[in-house]
Amino acid sequence: MSYNEVQLSELAKTIRGLSIDAIQAANSGHPGLPLGCAEIAAYLYGHALRHNPKNPHWVNRDRFVLSAGHGSMLLYSALHLSGYDVSLDTLKNFRQLNSPTAGHPEYKELPGIETTTGPLGQGVAMAVGMAFGQKIAKAQHQVPLDNTTYVLVGDGCLMEGISAEASSFAGHLELENLVVIYDSNDICLDGPTSECFTEDVAKRYESYGWDVQTINGHAFTAIDKAISHTKTTKKPSLIIAKTTIGFGSPNKAGSNASHGAPLGSEEIKLTKKGLGIPDIPFWIAPSLSAYFETRNAELSKLEKAWNSEYESWSTQNPEKSASYHLTLKQTFSAQQKESLKDIALPEGKATRATSNSVIQHISKELPYILGGSADLSCSDSTFIKEGGVISAKDFSGRNVKYGVREFAMGAIASGLVLQGNFRPFVGTFMTFSDYMKNAIRLAALMNIGVIYQFTHDSILLGEDGPTHQPVEHLASLRSIPNLTVIRPADTTEVKAAWATAIEAQGPVALILSRQGVPENEGSNFEEAQKGAYIVKKESKKPELILLATGSELSLALESAVALESEGKSVRVVSMPSWELFDAQDKHYQSTLLPLSAKYAVIEAQSSFGWHKYVGREGVCITVDTFGKSAPIADLKKVYGFNVDAICKKINTDLY
Amino acid sequence: MSYNEVQLSELAKTIRGLSIDAIQAANSGHPGLPLGCAEIAAYLYGHALRHNPKNPHWVNRDRFVLSAGHGSMLLYSALHLSGYDVSLDTLKNFRQLNSPTAGHPEYKELPGIETTTGPLGQGVAMAVGMAFGQKIAKAQHQVPLDNTTYVLVGDGCLMEGISAEASSFAGHLELENLVVIYDSNDICLDGPTSECFTEDVAKRYESYGWDVQTINGHAFTAIDKAISHTKTTKKPSLIIAKTTIGFGSPNKAGSNASHGAPLGSEEIKLTKKGLGIPDIPFWIAPSLSAYFETRNAELSKLEKAWNSEYESWSTQNPEKSASYHLTLKQTFSAQQKESLKDIALPEGKATRATSNSVIQHISKELPYILGGSADLSCSDSTFIKEGGVISAKDFSGRNVKYGVREFAMGAIASGLVLQGNFRPFVGTFMTFSDYMKNAIRLAALMNIGVIYQFTHDSILLGEDGPTHQPVEHLASLRSIPNLTVIRPADTTEVKAAWATAIEAQGPVALILSRQGVPENEGSNFEEAQKGAYIVKKESKKPELILLATGSELSLALESAVALESEGKSVRVVSMPSWELFDAQDKHYQSTLLPLSAKYAVIEAQSSFGWHKYVGREGVCITVDTFGKSAPIADLKKVYGFNVDAICKKINTDLY
Repeated sequence: MSYNEVQLSELAKTIRGLSIDAIQAANSGHPGLPLGCAEIAAYLYGHALRHNPKNPHWVNRDRFVLSAGHGSMLLYSALHLSGYDVSLDTLKNFRQLNSPTAGHPEYKELPGIETTTGPLGQGVAMAVGMAFGQKIAKAQHQVPLDNTTYVLVGDGCLMEGISAEASSFAGHLELENLVVIYDSNDICLDGPTSECFTEDVAKRYESYGWDVQTINGHAFTAIDKAISHTKTTKKPSLIIAKTTIGFGSPNKAGSNASHGAPLGSEEIKLTKKGLGIPDIPFWIAPSLSAYFETRNAELSKLEKAWNSEYESWSTQNPEKSASYHLTLKQTFSAQQKESLKDIALPEGKATRATSNSVIQHISKELPYILGGSADLSCSDSTFIKEGGVISAKDFSGRNVKYGVREFAMGAIASGLVLQGNFRPFVGTFMTFSDYMKNAIRLAALMNIGVIYQFTHDSILLGEDGPTHQPVEHLASLRSIPNLTVIRPADTTEVKAAWATAIEAQGPVALILSRQGVPENEGSNFEEAQKGAYIVKKESKKPELILLATGSELSLALESAVALESEGKSVRVVSMPSWELFDAQDKHYQSTLLPLSAKYAVIEAQSSFGWHKYVGREGVCITVDTFGKSAPIADLKKVYGFNVDAICKKINTDLY
Repeated sequence: MSYNEVQLSELAKTIRGLSIDAIQAANSGHPGLPLGCAEIAAYLYGHALRHNPKNPHWVNRDRFVLSAGHGSMLLYSALHLSGYDVSLDTLKNFRQLNSPTAGHPEYKELPGIETTTGPLGQGVAMAVGMAFGQKIAKAQHQVPLDNTTYVLVGDGCLMEGISAEASSFAGHLELENLVVIYDSNDICLDGPTSECFTEDVAKRYESYGWDVQTINGHAFTAIDKAISHTKTTKKPSLIIAKTTIGFGSPNKAGSNASHGAPLGSEEIKLTKKGLGIPDIPFWIAPSLSAYFETRNAELSKLEKAWNSEYESWSTQNPEKSASYHLTLKQTFSAQQKESLKDIALPEGKATRATSNSVIQHISKELPYILGGSADLSCSDSTFIKEGGVISAKDFSGRNVKYGVREFAMGAIASGLVLQGNFRPFVGTFMTFSDYMKNAIRLAALMNIGVIYQFTHDSILLGEDGPTHQPVEHLASLRSIPNLTVIRPADTTEVKAAWATAIEAQGPVALILSRQGVPENEGSNFEEAQKGAYIVKKESKKPELILLATGSELSLALESAVALESEGKSVRVVSMPSWELFDAQDKHYQSTLLPLSAKYAVIEAQSSFGWHKYVGREGVCITVDTFGKSAPIADLKKVYGFNVDAICKKINTDLY
């Protein structure tokens, strides 16, 4: 179908006008991109996207991700004009308190926002996740999905390493349903790109195995030709669209002055005059309403037609349809939970090994579980044994080999969740959670259910030494709002942790040991899901309370025996998750951890944050310096992780 | 000079034998790389490197960085054999407690270790920093430096996004003094690279503007030809060395089985037999001692010759020589500190703006200061106005445009410190400190003096919204051992923060506001360097103590006035840095923050960690959820950052 140049031009003009007006009204925002990419947005929203603004949740919709999230007014304008439930008043309230038109696009705030963007480069990786998810769902269930994921990126996105990681991954998997449009305007925030970014982007993307085109980003004919071509290639597509930042602004176009500040009312007047936009605030070209009425009727028909196709497929493939439905609903029944609780597991294993056993079980039960690791599956114990490895030739597997690309892995996993059919878990060594930190943060901000499996969870990993030994990482992860961090102590608690991870709305990080741990008397599946609970009651009153997590719980229990033998009354509390405990009622909290008691915490990471529970005077048997490369037995001795050292410290500091 | 194939072969054999023996003795380690890269190491340490093992600190030495740090035994063996002060016993104690032969190479543990490596990809970026530093020093002072930085990388390093960022940057600056050797063995930890890494690496590096060669990594002739060629090109060099992982191991070569576990004593026997190594533990080819005696005599002569050249340059260029010397010594005199303290500064500015004024001053005074930013210098206020931008054409500038590449920027800054002539500061928005987290950690682990300038330090940055508003970032940074985090409140404290940063041995993060802040009565340069001090004394006894940092200090002072008017006796403590306060003596600490007082903290980031100072019952006027996109006045109201809300909360929760 050919595009309507007249209407798309009106649309581009209107997007420009609305964007600069909203930014001016807010006295804050980024006009450079909306002015520079108006034709691209007009072509996509006015012609190319096979979506349905009246049903933003249609599973086979094309996705659009604005990776250059600072250009948010481009997206908001396009959503409003194309018929999404986004009012003009919302646009007028750009960047105001509680308005869904936030500074950067925020997931769930408005229909049509597929993901939160702003931190550069991550939109590319999340879009890769969306395109990838469609391919897997299609291969696993043969469901007739054929949508495309479009991404608009800027120079900044392509300078960020995460785009390199994600694009190499997308090329490896030949994700032909992914189209990245690069707003190449030779200007970045701080000046011309010639000062910092002179690589040959086309060649770089060809090296990843992408199809690359370079076009004039202001010419509809060129955009149309390029997008049409993407339908014919078997590779992911990069369209390098040469544009002018701040297009139309007589004094600021082509300069970083147009990037991140309102044009000013005088410049807006001149810009509108030059572009032929009437000097009316928030003007909308009159013809667009009828144009989109027609287009949206066609899009509704398109969705209906696909729904029919889907229904007939569903009837002919009842089993596949049922499994596909499960991936959409992502249910976890009481019975499934019970069966998870009842898995027979050997004792004494590392919690990473126990977790791997649990993974084998749940991956059979729950078709939406998708495994993956950053080149460590045989060490971080994430491999689904009967799952097969996903490849460009066969997407039906259950294991993703992300390569040594932690940051992209984190963001791709978010994209997989957003695509709609998966609860992915992704694994790496805990110390490398640093590499993917902002992807975890973004998942937490969106409150979406990615599961992170971080193993080798303390100095007790031994000889690999301080670069590999997490120390401050529990604090770093626990400090992220919305993220649930769980460090289970034994098989019972690992099962409970997985149950929580599956039930959770938001992201969950499982923190697992490299070394073997004993089963603890008193550990309890249901109680562990409360985040903290008594594993050993005090003999008399709660005089001294030992808090411990993960591999140190058994040590706390042993120490308690020794301390009780000295006549102390000691309670041991297992505390696998601060966030789960903080969500309990005040009575439970104050009864479990009364202010009157003396406290010690035993955890082989930093004490940072623990004083919230143990107070200023609490004893911290923790690791507050970097680790050392040595066998575990030596490390336990040097860092005081043995009963004698613990009892001595408690006796010295608390008695 | 031609290489001695016989001796280099003996050297390669010996490196292989020592490496697998040490790993076997430790029962832990990674034999795959030392076996696979023995010829490369032999060629470098036995022939190519222009260094002096007897003086590892020679400023014009060639550098070698083992980015694939897990192959540490390759480096330790080479250092021992080539004459560094690294004993055989040290090798025998590989990965044992307090042995300098740690699991991964650790800076300062042994002479010849140029940097700590292990977290993949960062060695590339640090090496870029070293090569870059040499170019800047040379351009700024015309000092006759002509050394080369060599890096050995694996597949993992090149999959990591940071290598993409750093390599693009190195290509942009045409760092012809950088040679990256890629151990391309088609195997990564988790299996064949065909499962996850199929990009065209040669083409990718060409796209960055590098010179690329592909060779047989086991053939000395090929290595020699390739390294010789690197001397002739005007670009950074990538040598793709095709190797066999675990070379020589009959049952494990070419497989990931050889990557990360000892070969086993039987396999070692077979390996040694096949390679012609006598079956003697820690065997060393007898001819090597004489070979290196000769070579080291030549290398000593080489250094002497360079020293003469340097001396004559120095005599002819006394001023340049003096400034170059200052960059080596990096002194900061009492007088310079006094003059920093005395800079006249306008009040009421954002701390980022004040910092920029300080930067103008210190960059004139201290030639070793080097500025830089991740494409934000006009917003994070890092630009040295009279400094000029460094480019491939002219390295004499003082400002580095890192591009939107935070992670590489962090690691390159570490490389600049390690190169020896600079105290670099690098800037970005605080929320993006996440992107460079592990580079900060590595600098902290090495305890080297990178200065991070993180601006836009709270939700009070306003409309850019939650993706850009740091919340948990202070906690995340404060939790890193060895890192000093300083959040100054006004001009006096910004000056003190910079003084601390310059005086510090290790890394320092300066946390600065986007919005203006008033000057606070009671703020004090010397006291601020203690980390925490009284800015307002209580009227009677220290009944209630308000702790605050940065932009919230003025609010604490205003609140104290209101609370005093209610009859309370209120002390206000400014606490710009936890780490500096924790380093004070116990008496100072307990007098400033007595256990008997009631506490509240006012800081527009997470409460995470504050209970260490305010106890379990302390009131936290903090931000424990994600932020919102809105004007600052609205955010202050919603998040309770005003006198009324603060007094109400204190009265409710503490009285």
